[in-house]
Amino acid sequence: MTNPVLVDVTRGDLVESRHRGMVAVVDGDGSLVFSLGDIDATVFPRSACKAMQALPLVESGAADAYGFGNAELALSAASHSGEPAHATLAAAMLARAGRDETVLECGAHWSFEQPVLIEQARSMEKPSALHNNCSGKHAGFVCAACHSGTDPKGYSSYDHPIQAEIRGIMESLTGAALGHDNCGTDGCSIPTYAVPLRGLAHGFARMVTGTGLAPQRAKASRRIIDACMAEPFYVAGTGRACTKLMQIAPGRIFAKTGAEGVFCAAVPEKGIAIALKCEDGATRAAEAMVAAVLSRFFDKDTPEQTGLTAMANRALRNWNGMHVGAVHAGALLTR
Amino acid sequence: MTNPVLVDVTRGDLVESRHRGMVAVVDGDGSLVFSLGDIDATVFPRSACKAMQALPLVESGAADAYGFGNAELALSAASHSGEPAHATLAAAMLARAGRDETVLECGAHWSFEQPVLIEQARSMEKPSALHNNCSGKHAGFVCAACHSGTDPKGYSSYDHPIQAEIRGIMESLTGAALGHDNCGTDGCSIPTYAVPLRGLAHGFARMVTGTGLAPQRAKASRRIIDACMAEPFYVAGTGRACTKLMQIAPGRIFAKTGAEGVFCAAVPEKGIAIALKCEDGATRAAEAMVAAVLSRFFDKDTPEQTGLTAMANRALRNWNGMHVGAVHAGALLTR
Repeated sequence: MTNPVLVDVTRGDLVESRHRGMVAVVDGDGSLVFSLGDIDATVFPRSACKAMQALPLVESGAADAYGFGNAELALSAASHSGEPAHATLAAAMLARAGRDETVLECGAHWSFEQPVLIEQARSMEKPSALHNNCSGKHAGFVCAACHSGTDPKGYSSYDHPIQAEIRGIMESLTGAALGHDNCGTDGCSIPTYAVPLRGLAHGFARMVTGTGLAPQRAKASRRIIDACMAEPFYVAGTGRACTKLMQIAPGRIFAKTGAEGVFCAAVPEKGIAIALKCEDGATRAAEAMVAAVLSRFFDKDTPEQTGLTAMANRALRNWNGMHVGAVHAGALLTR
Repeated sequence: MTNPVLVDVTRGDLVESRHRGMVAVVDGDGSLVFSLGDIDATVFPRSACKAMQALPLVESGAADAYGFGNAELALSAASHSGEPAHATLAAAMLARAGRDETVLECGAHWSFEQPVLIEQARSMEKPSALHNNCSGKHAGFVCAACHSGTDPKGYSSYDHPIQAEIRGIMESLTGAALGHDNCGTDGCSIPTYAVPLRGLAHGFARMVTGTGLAPQRAKASRRIIDACMAEPFYVAGTGRACTKLMQIAPGRIFAKTGAEGVFCAAVPEKGIAIALKCEDGATRAAEAMVAAVLSRFFDKDTPEQTGLTAMANRALRNWNGMHVGAVHAGALLTR
């Protein structure tokens, strides 16, 4: 099927570019609450499923043993901007396990956020693995392995116990069979598995409702989701969409982006979760889409709904600050 | 009509994202040589039409009066990376007209290219208008105005003589009627006009063939196109697609990108020009598309065709340098 246009990018009075996509909203039972486009298509969740990948850190008892609070758990589920507080906390997590950044297998990159990159360029020769947006997730893997008495070396590979455990967790949460056939390699070198979009949404709905989960997993899931909602800065960073979405409705919205236009989100009080993908992989469109879909679950004219609607209709300004157009998720805002 | 998928972005063995688009290839008479998608749809050419916008600089006699060679003309048709050589040459152009950067109305921004941005962050407090990717084009506007005895102040506005002249030039080249109805504001604050994609291609085919143009315009057009092909670094910069495309076949390929997934190109010896747009505005897809379409006009297994095909099938590597996928314009490479 051809996915519908969900976001228009306008210039003056005309549409300049269009973004297609698919959206699945489900409850804890997996019942479809809302959908658009081909939700049975498989998508790589990329970083949008980091909260699932953080479960071994909690379920193994490592998080308790190392005294991790909300900030550490949020960072373990983060795609952070590499701001000093992010890198420092990732290093502190590794130190609790008696390790340092040399154990990290994620590679290094400059921040994707221009203001952070400029500060990095002025303050360091080059970024380290601690500045990689995935360093918190990798620190979580290392901590889970070390606490369990497993050698963390090679923790990013398909056959390492930590990745095998994550594969099993993601199979049970999403209902999809995962293996080499639907496996790709993520930017940070760990496996990423293509799963049906609807199953991805169901996985997050299970995490926020606990429906069908063993008590220990239900508790660990909510602990991670709640930690992200409590410390949204550590999930992304200054000015970032995930952080802003969770700040709009503190404790009421969970949101996590993934590369190539994926976004997962949940409204725990409504018992629903959202998974969406912009067909072409555009972050700007996925951000507008998720804000628009979330806005449907908040009452009209509330600050939450107003804030979400504003993110779903973002003005574009040029280098002189002139308003030249907008990124507009109009198709999703209609109630 | 629904535009076809022209570029796949793969991860492992699976397609992760898809880019749709439209492509028009025409000759000097405007006859269609090749097309895909809705080529009658209007698109904002954005920076892809800078060679057209540089015509007043040459036709007014300003370029000769100020002694501009290929580098200056290439810069006047450039979206450059803000490297020191670009900013220095833009300043030199303005100095020939007795002006400096304070006359520029384009606004300032950091380089879009990470290595350049890092050097800028380390060497300057903030970028100036000379570092704006459009500074050469704006310097050309200022020089054309000054040489003609027109006050350059307000040269970026719709009603200034320089923009009115450009509007007329673009109407005659593309065959489209331009006015407030199809006008938007570009990133650098000048008007940009939505024109049918096919007309945009025809405009460039006219420029490279001279078909239907007055002798003075035909000569000025080829002078600008030839200058870009002779000095590809000044059209874009280190590692950039326009520069690489023109370096693959020196003097045989003209190529110019525009924001939001537009690309214009020409193969003068074949008498054809290309205009294309990625529906969603993605640069990575437009670059793969234009390389693939250009490859169709070069003999199989030549260095030119091999180089273009490689750009149309770009490998994606992660932070550890692992090959994780590709940007693949397969639908356009089939002969």
